[in-house]
Amino acid sequence: MTQKIVVIGANAAGIEAASAARKKDRTAEITLITKEKVAGYSRCGLPFVISGAISHFKDLIVYPPAYFQMLKLNLRTQTTALSINTVEKKVTIQTFDGITETILYDSLVIATGATPFMPPIKGREKQGILCLRSMEDGEKIDEHIRAGAKSAIVMGAGLIGLELGVALIERGLQVTVIEKMSQILPQIFDADMAKLVQEHLEQKGMKILLNRTVEEIVGDDKVSAIKACGEKFTADMFINAFGVRANTKIAVDSGIPLGETQSIKTDAHMETEVKNIYAVGDCAETIHFITHKPVCPQLGTIAVRQGKVAGTNAGKVNSQFTCILASTITRLFDIEAGATGISETTAIKNQIEVVTGTINSKTKADYYPSAKPIKVKLIVEKKTEHIIGAQIVGGEEVTQRINALSFAIQKQMTIKELAKSDTAYAPPMSETWEPMVLAAETVIMKLR
Amino acid sequence: MTQKIVVIGANAAGIEAASAARKKDRTAEITLITKEKVAGYSRCGLPFVISGAISHFKDLIVYPPAYFQMLKLNLRTQTTALSINTVEKKVTIQTFDGITETILYDSLVIATGATPFMPPIKGREKQGILCLRSMEDGEKIDEHIRAGAKSAIVMGAGLIGLELGVALIERGLQVTVIEKMSQILPQIFDADMAKLVQEHLEQKGMKILLNRTVEEIVGDDKVSAIKACGEKFTADMFINAFGVRANTKIAVDSGIPLGETQSIKTDAHMETEVKNIYAVGDCAETIHFITHKPVCPQLGTIAVRQGKVAGTNAGKVNSQFTCILASTITRLFDIEAGATGISETTAIKNQIEVVTGTINSKTKADYYPSAKPIKVKLIVEKKTEHIIGAQIVGGEEVTQRINALSFAIQKQMTIKELAKSDTAYAPPMSETWEPMVLAAETVIMKLR
Repeated sequence: MTQKIVVIGANAAGIEAASAARKKDRTAEITLITKEKVAGYSRCGLPFVISGAISHFKDLIVYPPAYFQMLKLNLRTQTTALSINTVEKKVTIQTFDGITETILYDSLVIATGATPFMPPIKGREKQGILCLRSMEDGEKIDEHIRAGAKSAIVMGAGLIGLELGVALIERGLQVTVIEKMSQILPQIFDADMAKLVQEHLEQKGMKILLNRTVEEIVGDDKVSAIKACGEKFTADMFINAFGVRANTKIAVDSGIPLGETQSIKTDAHMETEVKNIYAVGDCAETIHFITHKPVCPQLGTIAVRQGKVAGTNAGKVNSQFTCILASTITRLFDIEAGATGISETTAIKNQIEVVTGTINSKTKADYYPSAKPIKVKLIVEKKTEHIIGAQIVGGEEVTQRINALSFAIQKQMTIKELAKSDTAYAPPMSETWEPMVLAAETVIMKLR
Repeated sequence: MTQKIVVIGANAAGIEAASAARKKDRTAEITLITKEKVAGYSRCGLPFVISGAISHFKDLIVYPPAYFQMLKLNLRTQTTALSINTVEKKVTIQTFDGITETILYDSLVIATGATPFMPPIKGREKQGILCLRSMEDGEKIDEHIRAGAKSAIVMGAGLIGLELGVALIERGLQVTVIEKMSQILPQIFDADMAKLVQEHLEQKGMKILLNRTVEEIVGDDKVSAIKACGEKFTADMFINAFGVRANTKIAVDSGIPLGETQSIKTDAHMETEVKNIYAVGDCAETIHFITHKPVCPQLGTIAVRQGKVAGTNAGKVNSQFTCILASTITRLFDIEAGATGISETTAIKNQIEVVTGTINSKTKADYYPSAKPIKVKLIVEKKTEHIIGAQIVGGEEVTQRINALSFAIQKQMTIKELAKSDTAYAPPMSETWEPMVLAAETVIMKLR
């Protein structure tokens, strides 16, 4: 009998799920539903279209219509999933024209993503606050710049806020970032490493105000200023980069349980507590490799890996998702900053006793022209001497070092093993003593 | 009682040994002996001075005289170690002026390095054949170019031959590389990956002739041509890049045994079969992590790691060297090429049944400008499904991927674990699906 697979959401996680299902089940009827006009584009690429590094928003479309045709995936754009009947196994949808339909499923994959979150601030209902989640959001920001906007307030110093802030500066705007925490990128970096990134951003002209809670959105119908810690800030654009929240309404309404992170609870098969219903990507909860606690990492790499697992299971081939380390990387002007595993701050919160070590080195042999600085911080569990976290900020070659340390963490490499690791060296690409190895030495000295 | 430590050789391995010994023993008398005028420079940097990327040979001096003063290391340049008396524990040395002396030691570190090897070819005694091992060698090559040399024959397509060949082309010379094997870089790459590197070199103007044995050096006193497979080749410069051989004479003469690689046999402490005598760097034999066989990898990173272990032991603190993977990286024009672990060819030679997988991908998101191609090959032991080797050729970001896979190999990561690994992604630095992970998938498909 032909299996029916329905996927709600048609970006990274959803398409990966549909594609994986197709690989395992050649005959299944597979339907993807998305509210958006365009499916299969890279959200992570949006800041780089705004900056001008990428020419057009449509360049971000990784999966063109031909892809869906080739894999015989029934893609329904501008269509909203209204509700799920988990007993009768059907999804009620509404097309752009307002027509409702029901679609039956044998397996359902929820990849509803996340939505920018606006805290309960006075005046939050005012018009004109921008965000950057969808292609349409990006187009709106771009229109404002083309219309002559000269300044922007970015509320939130997370990844999206900073990447967008950089893009706006590259387009010539004056940018002020307002963050309620005492450091930028609090989800990813410890304060010492975040400081390094902040200094670079400030050198490039970004104004960053920490410890400032936005308390009011000012304006008549439309935002004209914001107030933070009593001070009023005006600008031509106001960006909500407070963070995102998992889109869970349809799950909750249909009785699919959330986890403690307020995203959809899943098991190792990415299956929710309702059989044959999977949740993947930014709306799904998963388990952290180090803390063993539920997390909702909302990262593209994790979305595709989860999508693949769910799709494979929907295609009736057993597949399991492993725990996550939330390996993250970003480029901000001339530096790359990345992390994997847990930060020192998170370790403390989780009562894990750690020893850390930090080293400043270079990305090439010291004598080689254009060697760039790089700083590596390692977080090591004192009891086991296992590496459990790493943070790197440098001028280049950060991403794959994060991957290297991610592999080390996954395989429970001890800090002493790292210090003796076999690494590759050539003057134009690295120092004789690899910075990761030098950082390991600094930890070992403290362990004695 | 003050300990006496003598180190023969004062480059990567020797200086690292002396420095490590000093860290463990504040009062030891530590003497370094080197034939060369200059100590503590980077041999690996020589091709980049010839190419012009680095301005002066003296820029390669990583350890200036002040370093030796600071660590109270007695450095004796232009001094030759003539013999070792292992019973009376003394080394006989000869200074530049011809004066001989004996120095007593409690611990001795042999870091005599290696010398370019000339096979028993007819006419091998002829003058004028250049090589690139020391700073003086580099200066000689540079003088030839300044004197108007327009063409060069490089005999041998190993790392040194190719890096030098690239440098000479960058200086405007016509370069022909002659290699007896059927591929370039036979020590490092399988033929399929070597082919990719070769094509790039040829595109950049390097003439590469494979399967050609140099059978005669032609000329009166001085080389004027070479013959290979009956064909005569003339050029303004002739470079011996056949490879290097461990400098073992002083060890052999004093009864210190060699291993089967004809380099000095060592144990995990880098100690030779004679107690308190260590051997490190290009003259020392060590054990391969995968094959468990003795090897003499002759790599800078391994030299410093061995030096550190030997010096620590000489300083009376126990330290052990781990087995090697011979992680290697090079940049040749616009590509980086690296490897770690064993090649498919080496696996076959060692009767290890393997499954391999190769993938072509990009170094950035496909839509991101200036994404460069990258090719990853993985070698997996069929029985254990452990990754045992990797080779990568790409436009950028190869080095740290080699390190990542080196960590994976050292921690016996299975190919299935690699396929599910947590990796970092951002459009300017990587693809959503990391190429190493995609390569793992291709292996897994073949394992089924």
